Amino acid sequence: MSANINKDLVREREKCNFDIQELIHIIDGSKEKTLMRKKVEDLVLSVEDLKDEIPEDYLSHKEKFENAVRKGCKLFDVYLELIDNNIQKADRSPSNIYRIHEGILKQVNPFLLHFGLFIPTIVNQANSEQQAKWLRKGSKMIGTYSQTELGHGTFLRGLETTATFDPETDEFILNSPKLTSYKFWPGGLGHISNASIVMAQLHINGKSHGIHLFLIQIRDFETHEPLPGIKVGEIGPKLGFNTANNGFVGFNNYRIPRTNMLMKNAQVLRDGTYIKSKNDKLTYGSMLLIRVHILTDVAYELARAVTIGVRYSAVRHQSVLKEGEPESQVLDYVTQQHKLFISIASSHAFRVLGQWMWKTYTKVMAEIGDGNMDQLPELHALSCCLKAVSSYDGVQCVERCRLACGGHGYLLSSNLPGVYGIVAASVTYEGEYTVLLLQTARYLVKAWNGAINGKTLPSSIAFLSDNFNQKSSSWDNLPEAIIEGFKAVVAGKIKTAFDSIQSHVNKGRDFEDAWNLSSVKLTAASEAYARFLICDVFWSETKKMTNVSKNVAVVLLQLAELYLVYWALEKSGDLLMYSTISKKNIDNIQSRYEELLGLIRPNAVGLVDAFDIRDEILCSTLGSYDGRVYERLMEEAAKSPLNKDKVNDTFHKYIKPFMIKHKL
Amino acid sequence: MSANINKDLVREREKCNFDIQELIHIIDGSKEKTLMRKKVEDLVLSVEDLKDEIPEDYLSHKEKFENAVRKGCKLFDVYLELIDNNIQKADRSPSNIYRIHEGILKQVNPFLLHFGLFIPTIVNQANSEQQAKWLRKGSKMIGTYSQTELGHGTFLRGLETTATFDPETDEFILNSPKLTSYKFWPGGLGHISNASIVMAQLHINGKSHGIHLFLIQIRDFETHEPLPGIKVGEIGPKLGFNTANNGFVGFNNYRIPRTNMLMKNAQVLRDGTYIKSKNDKLTYGSMLLIRVHILTDVAYELARAVTIGVRYSAVRHQSVLKEGEPESQVLDYVTQQHKLFISIASSHAFRVLGQWMWKTYTKVMAEIGDGNMDQLPELHALSCCLKAVSSYDGVQCVERCRLACGGHGYLLSSNLPGVYGIVAASVTYEGEYTVLLLQTARYLVKAWNGAINGKTLPSSIAFLSDNFNQKSSSWDNLPEAIIEGFKAVVAGKIKTAFDSIQSHVNKGRDFEDAWNLSSVKLTAASEAYARFLICDVFWSETKKMTNVSKNVAVVLLQLAELYLVYWALEKSGDLLMYSTISKKNIDNIQSRYEELLGLIRPNAVGLVDAFDIRDEILCSTLGSYDGRVYERLMEEAAKSPLNKDKVNDTFHKYIKPFMIKHKL
Repeated sequence: MSANINKDLVREREKCNFDIQELIHIIDGSKEKTLMRKKVEDLVLSVEDLKDEIPEDYLSHKEKFENAVRKGCKLFDVYLELIDNNIQKADRSPSNIYRIHEGILKQVNPFLLHFGLFIPTIVNQANSEQQAKWLRKGSKMIGTYSQTELGHGTFLRGLETTATFDPETDEFILNSPKLTSYKFWPGGLGHISNASIVMAQLHINGKSHGIHLFLIQIRDFETHEPLPGIKVGEIGPKLGFNTANNGFVGFNNYRIPRTNMLMKNAQVLRDGTYIKSKNDKLTYGSMLLIRVHILTDVAYELARAVTIGVRYSAVRHQSVLKEGEPESQVLDYVTQQHKLFISIASSHAFRVLGQWMWKTYTKVMAEIGDGNMDQLPELHALSCCLKAVSSYDGVQCVERCRLACGGHGYLLSSNLPGVYGIVAASVTYEGEYTVLLLQTARYLVKAWNGAINGKTLPSSIAFLSDNFNQKSSSWDNLPEAIIEGFKAVVAGKIKTAFDSIQSHVNKGRDFEDAWNLSSVKLTAASEAYARFLICDVFWSETKKMTNVSKNVAVVLLQLAELYLVYWALEKSGDLLMYSTISKKNIDNIQSRYEELLGLIRPNAVGLVDAFDIRDEILCSTLGSYDGRVYERLMEEAAKSPLNKDKVNDTFHKYIKPFMIKHKL
Repeated sequence: MSANINKDLVREREKCNFDIQELIHIIDGSKEKTLMRKKVEDLVLSVEDLKDEIPEDYLSHKEKFENAVRKGCKLFDVYLELIDNNIQKADRSPSNIYRIHEGILKQVNPFLLHFGLFIPTIVNQANSEQQAKWLRKGSKMIGTYSQTELGHGTFLRGLETTATFDPETDEFILNSPKLTSYKFWPGGLGHISNASIVMAQLHINGKSHGIHLFLIQIRDFETHEPLPGIKVGEIGPKLGFNTANNGFVGFNNYRIPRTNMLMKNAQVLRDGTYIKSKNDKLTYGSMLLIRVHILTDVAYELARAVTIGVRYSAVRHQSVLKEGEPESQVLDYVTQQHKLFISIASSHAFRVLGQWMWKTYTKVMAEIGDGNMDQLPELHALSCCLKAVSSYDGVQCVERCRLACGGHGYLLSSNLPGVYGIVAASVTYEGEYTVLLLQTARYLVKAWNGAINGKTLPSSIAFLSDNFNQKSSSWDNLPEAIIEGFKAVVAGKIKTAFDSIQSHVNKGRDFEDAWNLSSVKLTAASEAYARFLICDVFWSETKKMTNVSKNVAVVLLQLAELYLVYWALEKSGDLLMYSTISKKNIDNIQSRYEELLGLIRPNAVGLVDAFDIRDEILCSTLGSYDGRVYERLMEEAAKSPLNKDKVNDTFHKYIKPFMIKHKL
């Protein structure tokens, strides 16, 4: 076996000083979860016909879709069997097969939203009769979830699709009154789904009752043809998610039974009586959950990117560190370590934060079940800024990994552009970056106002009550000092933003204008809060790990410290502005950062091996386990349909006449 | 006309308080150059058959190539006629039609390297006999330039392709001894070119003479079939440049006449005598020139991205700034201005720096012509760090513009992913980012050492001679203070890196190891130097502009100041570390930054209109002049081949059987 493995990688693996298997189990959650993941992987990857003769990237947009449907059906075939046999839970846990789908489809499964959003929304928002009807076997529905419109994403209140109650027929009439009202973006809506949950403005007797959810049949269940009154199609190619079949739909006096409104909470009775939902906030739950999952998803995508970057950098030799010596592995250049290792650390950080958020989420949801909503605003604030910052950091890190692979990282066969396309989307979907930061900022400003007025604050921001000032003695103990320093930054930035709002208000501006004029500072405060949280939770959770061998504990602490130290340097301006840090402290942190790069270097390949992403799922010419980088690059090139013919037809058709005409 | 223009854009244009035409002329270089550009645009855009029935993005990889050859031939048809008629100079000046090509092909012309690198290399590196032969009409060559190999990019000395002189036949024998020796990446090499300049290791009588250039025929001039001993093809799909036909070529005992070595400088005589080039440094010239052009190219791509971002943000309404008011233009959100306006400023900065570098380049080349090489190292150092920083900033800015367009920016039809793909490549090609920064760092460290030892320094870094310390009184005058502050940062960072090297050497390390261990600091010093240069030149060149109306001068100064203030805030940590800036100064700069966003806001649409990029070249659903954003988005979606059929074949083939099997 090892005879076929690149010699540099063999040597790197021999150098690794910790138990890779142990770290794999930690990342999966437990040994049992690792075994389960591998079992599912083996099962799925043994399915026939999942490989492509021609790589996806050579296909046309239409061919990509059709190939994705073919493979998507096969994959969900296996998925449903796994659920039936209780091998796989029907959820989106990190070990589930969505990640395998992503590997095999290079992007997402076009049926993703049926299982991932359509069914769960019915479970969460439909009443029991509706659930019995719509979730029964043989309902013939493949569904999606349609919320965003051509003209509206962030501002749900502004959605334009209308559902008007007709008391005569006991129906709702769906309409897209303007071009901008077309639903636009839902995955699987283009040509896969025959039904959709649709968010629309409810009108009864000329009165508007705001947005509600409706189950709408889009296509005939037998012929799959769009139904009269429905205009449906796909929205075209994108930076990523090209197998997701994102679509549009417009409604023209399209009628559905009254009972197709999802009525677990709000209801419309036969006579048109509108019964308000008892608790609007309950609908937050699933949105919150998706944001929690995004942390874990970014951790995973970063693991893919940095696995590619580190393995390639171990295999790649370029230039000489010293005259007369052989060319060095590029991983030995400290600038390369600087580009890559933060992604290893960030992947662990987001994984740990994801687990922590999951625990927090579960706890808060249990409390809500008991009627206690107190923690919901805090959870909302946490989920907003952490989703924003983790996805944004994720994109930056994936880009660094791509750039670390030089020209070859620009090839689609490296899969770095593919991973980038996936992470890049997550900055926008499920809450746009800036919008989410401002949501958290609103919470922070309120808390600050409370702190000034002596209110007791929620645990995660209790430190603001002290109108926080860092003690000056604390910079001896580096990681903790950075966390304390970031606390001071958060306090300082909230205060700055708060004072800015006050100052604009004092000059006679409306609060809303003052808010907008202070919004650059507000987003900065929110980002600082997320950064503090990540550093604090990552460090403390890593420190308190038990049942872990010494060497694994050491590397995980190194990664956590690297994360803190890296961000302390990135945010040195903030620390100098708001904490007690000195210039000398920053010099020391810089030295410690460079030391840590050196300490992590021998374990770098071991650390990415511990992400344990199989070649079939990694899908990268540059990052495969055996390090056959150059062979794979040429093998992939050989698959190009253009390379099948010695001479392309365009030579005779265009090039030769051109040469003759211009006497080239 | 204006009846078809989006009302918000009409209003924005009415608000604009400067003469857009005047700024267009400034950006083009003069009124005459604007007229020439428009004339060429009109000519090219009037050519028949340049429009696609199906947008490129729906095509397969092979179809994209074939379509690009078709359009590429047509475009060069016009280009050559323009040259013949003296309308267009045969160079790469900003006003030339390469930019139109990029618009029409969405990427680059597959013939780009023939005219852009193959011919110029013959002009610069071949002797007069060779030029007469190879540049004559009817030479039947379409060529490219092959340097990078599968295993080598940065480290030219490590290139593995060999050219061994055979004195018996008076030939060179070309070989690719290993897989990694294959030439990989040259544009047009896959299926377009029948010839290439090839860089190879010259061997004569068992002695190596280093890398030299050879003209190699790749394909038969009549049949276009690859010649025996040549293995050639294309390398597959990429993040961008998918019409560039990047290829690979391998040689197996492939023979060429001795006279096919480019012999303007070094020569090999009939008897195998090797005559060394008199001046190796002369070959730097064209590499330097390309890096100078990259500054201007990035300026242009940024102009495209921010034109899209600003116009869309003027048309797009989302959320309400105040309850009860209509939804706001997203351009009115200060966070949106924060995302976009730095790109307007950066585009102007890189344009101005490009002009300044061009002047510097011309001056230094003239001196070299007179035998004076003194300024070459300085020019090299300038070109390296400016290319690195401008391309890197360019990517960040394009990404910000894309994110500013929310979900719709993720659509290929927005063309923001396309622009991103082009700029992203420039971080790597013609000198990788980190490698270039380290080149400049080497120059800076040497200069620092000189300064310590009392040497006179070149003009651009003369300030280091003072072992620079900023005077504390100067923060009253903001832009100049920032420039002085950045000088102090440069000096501080070079000193830090220099001391770090010394400290490692003092601990007994070799200089090379000490250099590597200090390389994160070295790249930071180099980046700081580039940042200082951009700020200094952009501000001083803008300030000394003459013959410009007051209002245009005001907006240009606002943009220059915005650029300086933005980067002062981004680099607040550096300024606090190394300059005399106070925390209060930084608060003031933050306020000034927010003020400037407000000042620029009313002119934002006017400013992007002044980039004067025609819709046919901008190629964006979101950024067109008339602002018909939503209509265009739907029109583009309607062109999807998937939307031609009501029901896709995969329904009957895969989806229905899947539904039946699983009783969906």
